[in-house]
Amino acid sequence: MNFNKITPDLVEAFAAIVGPEHLVLPADQEGMVRYTHDETEDLRYLPEVVLRPKNAEEISRIMRLCHENAIPVTPRGAGTGLSGGALAVHGGVVLSMERLNAIISIDERNLQATVEPGVITQVFQEAVISRGLFYPPDPSSRGSCQLGGNLSESSGGPRAVKYGVTKDYVLNLEVVLPTGEITWTGANVLKNATGYNLTQLMVGSEGTLGIITKIVFRLIPYPTQNLVLLVPFRKEEEAAAAVSKIFTAGIVPSALEFMEREAIEWTCRYLGLEVPMAADERAHLLIELDGNDMDLLYKDAERVYEVLETFDVGDILVADTKKQKEDLWRLRRSVGHAVKSNSVYKEEDTVVPRAELPVLLRGVKEIGERYKFKSVCYGHAGDGNLHINIVKGDMSDDDWQNKLPEGIKEIFRLCVSLGGTISGEHGIGLVQRPYIGIALSNVQLRLMQGIKQLFDPKGILNPGKIF
Amino acid sequence: MNFNKITPDLVEAFAAIVGPEHLVLPADQEGMVRYTHDETEDLRYLPEVVLRPKNAEEISRIMRLCHENAIPVTPRGAGTGLSGGALAVHGGVVLSMERLNAIISIDERNLQATVEPGVITQVFQEAVISRGLFYPPDPSSRGSCQLGGNLSESSGGPRAVKYGVTKDYVLNLEVVLPTGEITWTGANVLKNATGYNLTQLMVGSEGTLGIITKIVFRLIPYPTQNLVLLVPFRKEEEAAAAVSKIFTAGIVPSALEFMEREAIEWTCRYLGLEVPMAADERAHLLIELDGNDMDLLYKDAERVYEVLETFDVGDILVADTKKQKEDLWRLRRSVGHAVKSNSVYKEEDTVVPRAELPVLLRGVKEIGERYKFKSVCYGHAGDGNLHINIVKGDMSDDDWQNKLPEGIKEIFRLCVSLGGTISGEHGIGLVQRPYIGIALSNVQLRLMQGIKQLFDPKGILNPGKIF
Repeated sequence: MNFNKITPDLVEAFAAIVGPEHLVLPADQEGMVRYTHDETEDLRYLPEVVLRPKNAEEISRIMRLCHENAIPVTPRGAGTGLSGGALAVHGGVVLSMERLNAIISIDERNLQATVEPGVITQVFQEAVISRGLFYPPDPSSRGSCQLGGNLSESSGGPRAVKYGVTKDYVLNLEVVLPTGEITWTGANVLKNATGYNLTQLMVGSEGTLGIITKIVFRLIPYPTQNLVLLVPFRKEEEAAAAVSKIFTAGIVPSALEFMEREAIEWTCRYLGLEVPMAADERAHLLIELDGNDMDLLYKDAERVYEVLETFDVGDILVADTKKQKEDLWRLRRSVGHAVKSNSVYKEEDTVVPRAELPVLLRGVKEIGERYKFKSVCYGHAGDGNLHINIVKGDMSDDDWQNKLPEGIKEIFRLCVSLGGTISGEHGIGLVQRPYIGIALSNVQLRLMQGIKQLFDPKGILNPGKIF
Repeated sequence: MNFNKITPDLVEAFAAIVGPEHLVLPADQEGMVRYTHDETEDLRYLPEVVLRPKNAEEISRIMRLCHENAIPVTPRGAGTGLSGGALAVHGGVVLSMERLNAIISIDERNLQATVEPGVITQVFQEAVISRGLFYPPDPSSRGSCQLGGNLSESSGGPRAVKYGVTKDYVLNLEVVLPTGEITWTGANVLKNATGYNLTQLMVGSEGTLGIITKIVFRLIPYPTQNLVLLVPFRKEEEAAAAVSKIFTAGIVPSALEFMEREAIEWTCRYLGLEVPMAADERAHLLIELDGNDMDLLYKDAERVYEVLETFDVGDILVADTKKQKEDLWRLRRSVGHAVKSNSVYKEEDTVVPRAELPVLLRGVKEIGERYKFKSVCYGHAGDGNLHINIVKGDMSDDDWQNKLPEGIKEIFRLCVSLGGTISGEHGIGLVQRPYIGIALSNVQLRLMQGIKQLFDPKGILNPGKIF
């Protein structure tokens, strides 16, 4: 890729578009620092300039300039990504979407909402709950991540198991193409058989095909009741095996999360909580059931107990107060940060058909023994989505840099052999890019790169990602 | 497009691939006739040859030959389409998928199934129900249509309102590209953030990007109970208005169908049933509630009644025996055929945000008055998807050919102005192609045509459709 550097003239032109107060240069070290990293390991890349546009029109003008001058552009939400998607690896412009943060409308008649991409996910969730409506996708970072970032990675979260991921709530998108053209991708309808699905092509494209500037979401009625169970298992693999048994019994929980013992121990220590586990308990499932009728939820819980009785489980904790539920969810949502605070780490976002989880988990541990790495596993087991945190611990720098990638390849090959793939909800971004050939064939890659070329002939939008 | 004619040498080469017994030539008039039409109006196109391959490998060999020789290829399911997608408008090869009709596996552990595209939708539904599982998409033609065709048009059906359309159940596809390469589009997982979404690009592409040869579906537990209500209204628009009120009351029915009086009258006559309507009733909603607990369904029904009481409704029929429910559904599913048997007609597959239905319905009638056409409206009102059957009646041939298209344009412009689009589940195919510019901008069309060009450089696959 032949990119140009940003000249003083271009800086001036950018300032005229966004206003000088919304342009940050490297000289402003303090202002710049948060745009140099996301939540991926300890990676840092310095852009040549950060722009904070206000709307699609400003972004269109910026993209026309960058297209004309072959300047790389890295769009950026809140920087909570875990695959390095928002890192400006080729310098150039970082385009921060933080000022496109309006909830434009919540249409209660149609159960739809139109928002800008910079809205914080939890802010949006709470805004619709206050109208009795539900936007289910809830990545762990929902208190800080932005909806545009969620779309770019097709984020999930615990409730995806019942309600689907971000992609399942998107009806229509306004997008600025790398060439500066502004277009909508679809229509504001629940069904659409009018041409190719550009909407779903944009979702999960990790900011490489266009910049999302407006989103039309569908919403559903908010379920008023729920019940949360914490179930300890004496064997990790039994916890993983119980997951698919719950579904085959005909129950669809609204969350079904798996946590290894150490994930809970480290997180309790991180949060200053008491560890809720007997010494012989090796893993937990966190199960949430939701609906509108408490009696029915207790009946469903009885059916879950019947499944669990066929496994070697400890005392089941039933959280039915608001406080208890919040504590359990706080515990689950904090695992990522807790592991991170413990050691240098790498996080893999593996996903397999859910009944293959025990095989995956056993395989990861076996590969870890051979490559001498320790892993802490947790994640959205109901979806077959297992986050594997590989912690550096006392591994040598040389082994970490040079041997570990071979171990990661073995994990990914195992996923693919089980019918799975290498990322369920974090994306490929920068850090999984070396592994993409394990998941995708040359034909698939050729088609995807052809699509990229079609949307972005000069390859200026988020270069260095995915491929 | 410069296509070549099929030579005797090519016929011989095709016969060597599929076997002479699976090749049909125009000389075999009787064998050929069913491949010359689908369910779209009275359109007829004669292919040069029909091939009935057995698997992806045979299709790959056929496509390589056709690509090399610039021969147009029209893939075909059961021919139940309503937009002319399976018509061989450029002659060439019709590729019938009827022999790829195996249910390869139903994976109860993972709630997944792998099937070939030629499986009849209802055969598949019943196969999974026998294992306690549910494949919800149910187009009216489910007794004869094929899953591959359902995917190509992203078909819906009544239960889409709660469960989503065909696209929402597809995890992964095996596809033969127009160049003959065989590829999978994704992985067998519920979440996938690994590269662009080629799966959803293929779904709804109306057989223009590739030929689907295997499908991996996700399944859900089968809901064991349901309740069906038939609700008469004295004003059509009130029936349409009640639709969105049911949702805003927090209820998500498993079906919510709208039928104008004449849709019911004509269908009852067609089926030889008694007309279940008082003289002053103008439209009906058919409402289905489903779940696993009958008490809860009756509670939901109470809440539906509370909404309906705010409208001018007649006596509500509650179907709770299997026979009663089947009769009502048979009535609903037969509307299309009944209207068709009545007159030359055109069917439009409009879709808008559901609360805009009354505006659409009023608009259609007003446009009909101006252009002097009669319309019978019915459809999946819960999804905002209104099928408008325009009947020729005593309209002159000249008006039918030349004036009516202007009226259709007005209907489609109205849909788009309401946030909707011109096809919800039937596709663009041949007959809606002249109207595509009403729904899609030049930018969208350029991107879609670029994708087409990428997948099919010679434009041989289903030419003359969509664009």
